[in-house]
Amino acid sequence: MYLKFEIYKFVENVPISRTEMEEILNLVKFAPSAFNLQHTHYVVVTDPETKERVYEAAQRQYKVKTASAVILVLGDKEAHQNVGPIHEGLLHLGVMDQREFDHTVSSVQAFYEEGGDSFKRDEAIRNASLSAMLFMLTAKEKGWDTCPMIGFDPEAIRQILNIPDQYVPVMMIAIGKEDVSSQRVRGYRKPVGEFVSYNKFQA
Amino acid sequence: MYLKFEIYKFVENVPISRTEMEEILNLVKFAPSAFNLQHTHYVVVTDPETKERVYEAAQRQYKVKTASAVILVLGDKEAHQNVGPIHEGLLHLGVMDQREFDHTVSSVQAFYEEGGDSFKRDEAIRNASLSAMLFMLTAKEKGWDTCPMIGFDPEAIRQILNIPDQYVPVMMIAIGKEDVSSQRVRGYRKPVGEFVSYNKFQA
Repeated sequence: MYLKFEIYKFVENVPISRTEMEEILNLVKFAPSAFNLQHTHYVVVTDPETKERVYEAAQRQYKVKTASAVILVLGDKEAHQNVGPIHEGLLHLGVMDQREFDHTVSSVQAFYEEGGDSFKRDEAIRNASLSAMLFMLTAKEKGWDTCPMIGFDPEAIRQILNIPDQYVPVMMIAIGKEDVSSQRVRGYRKPVGEFVSYNKFQA
Repeated sequence: MYLKFEIYKFVENVPISRTEMEEILNLVKFAPSAFNLQHTHYVVVTDPETKERVYEAAQRQYKVKTASAVILVLGDKEAHQNVGPIHEGLLHLGVMDQREFDHTVSSVQAFYEEGGDSFKRDEAIRNASLSAMLFMLTAKEKGWDTCPMIGFDPEAIRQILNIPDQYVPVMMIAIGKEDVSSQRVRGYRKPVGEFVSYNKFQA
């Protein structure tokens, strides 16, 4: 698989159906997350009027205008509040006993509360980014091109899409079919020796 | 591909060679990153003595003890300082002209400096997490099981592995062959309808 996520323009007017989107998301749900808290929420924008407003809030980037859909990947800073409901199934299956369940619930809640706002934000970004990468790879496998973006005004996006304060807008993903006539080369990548070290950090 | 990243124990004494590790990392280098800054650095720990110390700093989790290698995924808070060298290739190829190159260098640097410490940290976590997910999926494709972890003492890890302050220890990844005799079921996942909304956020 040729991995390239630098898209300048998509082929215009290629719709992506809700069925196609959900085929991708049905795999994305298996992304790992800390304590299986599933911090990530996706807002999929295909409505033309909303998409136009998102385009305005994303520096009028042509890839947003031409994308089949634009997706906001959000991270929930309060995902630890769901630790009980998420682990209940394992309790009912007998995989966890009541004591282990109670310990998990209280220790996970305490871990996040002790970490405070900064840790909750880190976790929202970390877990949503793991999920976002799985989204992009799954989309690729199903024939769609994607481009992750941070060049947008998070407060404007929050207003347009009604995003509550407890969610961090972690990343925008434009999805569509790449217009290869506007293709640019993939950027330079460092060789492995420059970003990997063994047993001790070495720059 | 069955996606599962919850490992309790690996088969002990399964070595992973440097060649096998680099086959994975040679694909991981194509992970997307903001402005192609490649914020991610990997420290691969296989040396038994160092690995034992990492185990101590990671709440003595059995998966660390039994893993073939433990990997620290770091995010560079100063990756934007490399914007020049990284884009030089495109300048030399004629893909970018001097004016575009100069604009890219100064605007990317300004973007990170204006964002300040908090944005630099967000970026380190976001980009290293994208890379980490690609690492785990690539490893899986090559027959290795992985488990991402945040249950470790970052300051202890910083000392053991000599990690400079400018790098955030974003995640630990244990890699090996899952000991299926110690397997637990994969945790509950929310159905798509609970973590996806269309055109407007809906909980």
